Amino acid sequence: MKQLQDEITQALTKLDGGSEFHEDSWERPEGGGGRSRVLRDGAIFEQAGVNFSEVWGSHLPPSILAQRPEAEGHGFYATGTSLVLHPRNPYVPTVHLNYRYFEAGPVWWFGGGADLTPYYPFAEDAAHFHQTLKLACDEHHPEYYPVFKRWCDEYFYLKHRDETRGVGGLFFDYQDGQGVLYRGPNPKGEAANYSNQVGEPASRDWEDLFSFIQGSGKAFLPAYVPIVERRHGMEYGDRQRNFQLYRRGRYVEFNLVYDRGTIFGLQTNGRTESILMSLPPLVRWEYGYQPEPNSPEAELYDTFLKPQDWSNWTANQ
Amino acid sequence: MKQLQDEITQALTKLDGGSEFHEDSWERPEGGGGRSRVLRDGAIFEQAGVNFSEVWGSHLPPSILAQRPEAEGHGFYATGTSLVLHPRNPYVPTVHLNYRYFEAGPVWWFGGGADLTPYYPFAEDAAHFHQTLKLACDEHHPEYYPVFKRWCDEYFYLKHRDETRGVGGLFFDYQDGQGVLYRGPNPKGEAANYSNQVGEPASRDWEDLFSFIQGSGKAFLPAYVPIVERRHGMEYGDRQRNFQLYRRGRYVEFNLVYDRGTIFGLQTNGRTESILMSLPPLVRWEYGYQPEPNSPEAELYDTFLKPQDWSNWTANQ
Repeated sequence: MKQLQDEITQALTKLDGGSEFHEDSWERPEGGGGRSRVLRDGAIFEQAGVNFSEVWGSHLPPSILAQRPEAEGHGFYATGTSLVLHPRNPYVPTVHLNYRYFEAGPVWWFGGGADLTPYYPFAEDAAHFHQTLKLACDEHHPEYYPVFKRWCDEYFYLKHRDETRGVGGLFFDYQDGQGVLYRGPNPKGEAANYSNQVGEPASRDWEDLFSFIQGSGKAFLPAYVPIVERRHGMEYGDRQRNFQLYRRGRYVEFNLVYDRGTIFGLQTNGRTESILMSLPPLVRWEYGYQPEPNSPEAELYDTFLKPQDWSNWTANQ
Repeated sequence: MKQLQDEITQALTKLDGGSEFHEDSWERPEGGGGRSRVLRDGAIFEQAGVNFSEVWGSHLPPSILAQRPEAEGHGFYATGTSLVLHPRNPYVPTVHLNYRYFEAGPVWWFGGGADLTPYYPFAEDAAHFHQTLKLACDEHHPEYYPVFKRWCDEYFYLKHRDETRGVGGLFFDYQDGQGVLYRGPNPKGEAANYSNQVGEPASRDWEDLFSFIQGSGKAFLPAYVPIVERRHGMEYGDRQRNFQLYRRGRYVEFNLVYDRGTIFGLQTNGRTESILMSLPPLVRWEYGYQPEPNSPEAELYDTFLKPQDWSNWTANQ
């Protein structure tokens, strides 16, 4: 996980070319700590935050024990890397990645994923992101991508707006190599339906899953960097910038209202500055905003903020 | 409640002088509706939102029934007025007001309050706001202000920042004229302690409480308008504006992470645009910000974001 943080921050520093990451190391009094790295006012990134943390303790918080009673009476260890990149140019999408590992006595699991949040509708960007992640998944199991893609659409959803956060990607949790792939809260959703049709895949061991996590982590740069490279030079004006700042409000709404990691971190005395590093540096809200019909902004709402089969998109469809 | 919305929007239009309120009326399919009024880009207010709503139905949502089982099997009626004003000048504080009434069969109660969120530390503004609200309370019961002021400090608190939202004011809920005054969730807090010392005041009827609500509603303009009048002409620069935008982030964090009304509204298919009218029009987040020692910004943190006895503040203390 630490290595993933290193690889990604090195590559992003090179890509940005205008600023560098500053690191804060922190310790957790109850055990463990982390490294928060932030790049600000770069040539490409208005803000890029990449966190690594590794924490342990003698007993789990009650909220986790309620979900996983088998972990009662054991110490725990949890580690993860997460990032959120907020580019300045509205034609470059925001992106999020998180991979994490948890163990407590006999219980262990992996979780994580990556998802893309464009401001302007470029279908080839969404398709490239999904196809790259799908390839990385398919090397480990043919049903990972179709289940985790649907789980991502379900998770990154703003109910009060009836919008997905963006074009999605992958999301999964509680992966221990046993049982069905979908372990989320909605037994009647698309992800659960698909996962139930797949049934229980052959069991996979710790090394299999670790290798899958490594593979998806490594797929992040090839999934995202080419999109930055083809968009960051595009000219934009106040209209695009204002729309980007407005849409960033949805990122804030999602992270503060729905995101389990954010809410859990804030409620359990996590390091607030590291947790809220995901929030954009500048954000607008506007009462009653509606995109102009037939505009690129309307196309974003109509097509990119609803689940789509991006990995099968082709240029001449 | 509707009348309070009318009085306040008329007075604010006159005060602002540069823009006007636009109204959206909306209906709720299950019964009732509301009027949302927004003034934008005014001479004083960057955004001012004043909502009125009145809703009814044949059965309560399960989340309310869990709290108030006596209301089971009855229809309900709920009405309220709320406002949030975001001035442009960082020397003028943001303010929030909400008064609401609820009934279902034999059960009824009033709730509400008003609280002030300054960006720059003017003790006389905080004192004026509190003293004006205290006078309005004292006309109805001498223990209303001391209990509801403490309840306000408890409610408008950002745990993950260890900061109050601002200098507070009044907050109360479930007031039906019976029992102790504090009915909040924290039995060991300052508000509960004080309220327990007071004991159970003589019972008050619906008219008594309605008259108290009217009185506190009417106290809003004299509590807030003089502060606007003495601050809105003060010159400010980028430093003050940037600090205001940064502190507005706390308003967003509070409303989306902690505010029961906001979260309840979003989860129960309330009108999203009206609920989120409270969010500021432009907001900044900055990783790791710390105020400069001995600056006005540091004074805000040290004194104004902690509970203080503002109603007893005097200029020469």
